[in-house]
Amino acid sequence: MPVNVLFAALPERWETYETPLKNALTAAGVEANLTLDLPPGEVDYIVYAPNSDVQDFTPFTRAKAVLNLWAGVEDVVGNETLKIPLARMVDHGLTQGMVEWVTGHVLRHHLNTDLHVHGQDGEWRRYVPPLAGDRRVTVLGLGALGSACATALANLGFDVTGWSRSPKDVAGIACLSGAEGLTKALRQAEIVVLLLPFTPETENTLNAETLAQMPKGAIIINPGRGPLIDDAALLEALDSGQIGHATLDVFRVEPLPVDHPYWAHPNVTVTPHIASETRAETAAEVIAENIRRGEAGEPFLHLVDRDLGY
Amino acid sequence: MPVNVLFAALPERWETYETPLKNALTAAGVEANLTLDLPPGEVDYIVYAPNSDVQDFTPFTRAKAVLNLWAGVEDVVGNETLKIPLARMVDHGLTQGMVEWVTGHVLRHHLNTDLHVHGQDGEWRRYVPPLAGDRRVTVLGLGALGSACATALANLGFDVTGWSRSPKDVAGIACLSGAEGLTKALRQAEIVVLLLPFTPETENTLNAETLAQMPKGAIIINPGRGPLIDDAALLEALDSGQIGHATLDVFRVEPLPVDHPYWAHPNVTVTPHIASETRAETAAEVIAENIRRGEAGEPFLHLVDRDLGY
Repeated sequence: MPVNVLFAALPERWETYETPLKNALTAAGVEANLTLDLPPGEVDYIVYAPNSDVQDFTPFTRAKAVLNLWAGVEDVVGNETLKIPLARMVDHGLTQGMVEWVTGHVLRHHLNTDLHVHGQDGEWRRYVPPLAGDRRVTVLGLGALGSACATALANLGFDVTGWSRSPKDVAGIACLSGAEGLTKALRQAEIVVLLLPFTPETENTLNAETLAQMPKGAIIINPGRGPLIDDAALLEALDSGQIGHATLDVFRVEPLPVDHPYWAHPNVTVTPHIASETRAETAAEVIAENIRRGEAGEPFLHLVDRDLGY
Repeated sequence: MPVNVLFAALPERWETYETPLKNALTAAGVEANLTLDLPPGEVDYIVYAPNSDVQDFTPFTRAKAVLNLWAGVEDVVGNETLKIPLARMVDHGLTQGMVEWVTGHVLRHHLNTDLHVHGQDGEWRRYVPPLAGDRRVTVLGLGALGSACATALANLGFDVTGWSRSPKDVAGIACLSGAEGLTKALRQAEIVVLLLPFTPETENTLNAETLAQMPKGAIIINPGRGPLIDDAALLEALDSGQIGHATLDVFRVEPLPVDHPYWAHPNVTVTPHIASETRAETAAEVIAENIRRGEAGEPFLHLVDRDLGY
């Protein structure tokens, strides 16, 4: 008997996901009835985007898991009607895209390419950066995305420190943890990359106090979550020169309102939440594998810890 | 008895190199008299920059080798007074710096970061690039610099093809060679990186014919040598849209004259010959090692083949 899989995301996403999901389910050997519309009591699995119409999970009486299409779960993890396992998206394509975006922007700041991208006026502006081995980069967050980015930067030769709430070990990376570790990680960060999950504990990780701990003129790159940064404190630190530049991909409100001071600030680069996208083909494989596991009685991949919030 | 080493470069380079060279010679166990001024007949080794005053090597009757401070030897290799071995500079720092610059600019074009660096006007410009695995990059030249850059790009996930005059083999890179190989390498190049030596054979490698072989809108990145490109043909290809953008670090005349059309072209980024610098500390180690080898009767490293011109 086929398993019933409800696709609960914005309707326009169906076009992107229908074929990849059907192909991936077939490839995983799962006979499935994948659809946009099913009586809740007949649904076995919910493929889920937190901005879908489904906000009350109570009627899904036999569903075995909610399989999130997004890496971020902050908009669903606190849903009190959700009693069944929730899996995050950890997608090879998402990770790879993040590595490319982060590496590109770290190199952009390291090499100061903006000097020449903006400076096509005939002036021969020599700027020779230090080698990457003399450039200290700190990655906050050592989950799937943070670890992959830290590793790629270390492979390119950067002097990389990683920080996570609880102790972790990533080959080639100086790993710090806890509150004291954060201070140490920030004190030496010429460039800091934010890849923490958004939880009540990580909100405003960069605030007036922690920004002041960084070396003067440090660079901030945030492809993680908007609320990791206290925006008012960052703007003040940019104005004083304590922070040299911020490249921000995520914001408390998106799209970032046109009158937000970040747009106008000469030392801020706004990018429109593009650091990484979930790719339909690779994401569909992750979803299909979790359904296969559920049916085989094997443990789900990438389960969210409700207490930690990620 | 100490060996006599003449430092023959522009006088202002002495300040940069004196201490690193002395330290490196000591570390290599070579007792040396390193100086700016020696009677030619007493010189054992010439540490050389092609723009130095020394252009006639005839009086250096007992010198054993000319040790070039630059990677490029095109301004010395044809010197008919030079009868002794000539070694190129292959410097870890130079190679690493080139890898960083090339990777940074390949990612800049791959991600189209200029769209956002230039577009801080409040408009939310979503652009999601393909993953690197779906981006075909061709590196022309598989010497020390080209191989290192091709490898770094492949490690980041790019689909990399390399081309060299004679067949080479670089792990993880599809290697092509010869005239037919060049056509094949260019036909598929969404981004091409020029790291060929400058020789009579490589002059104008990119010309009207070869530019037309590339996919429409292809990107050119030239950190190699200016004369590898026929400038008039490139400007025409940029104007027609056949070439989407050119990021050029090297030119026939440097600094690039302020009235050169490259400066004003909206689809050209000029950078001021900074893709890589010889770093004094690492370069000094290479020079010292070659002097040690010369004194020990061991073969020199990085010898130039006068017939090939590199």
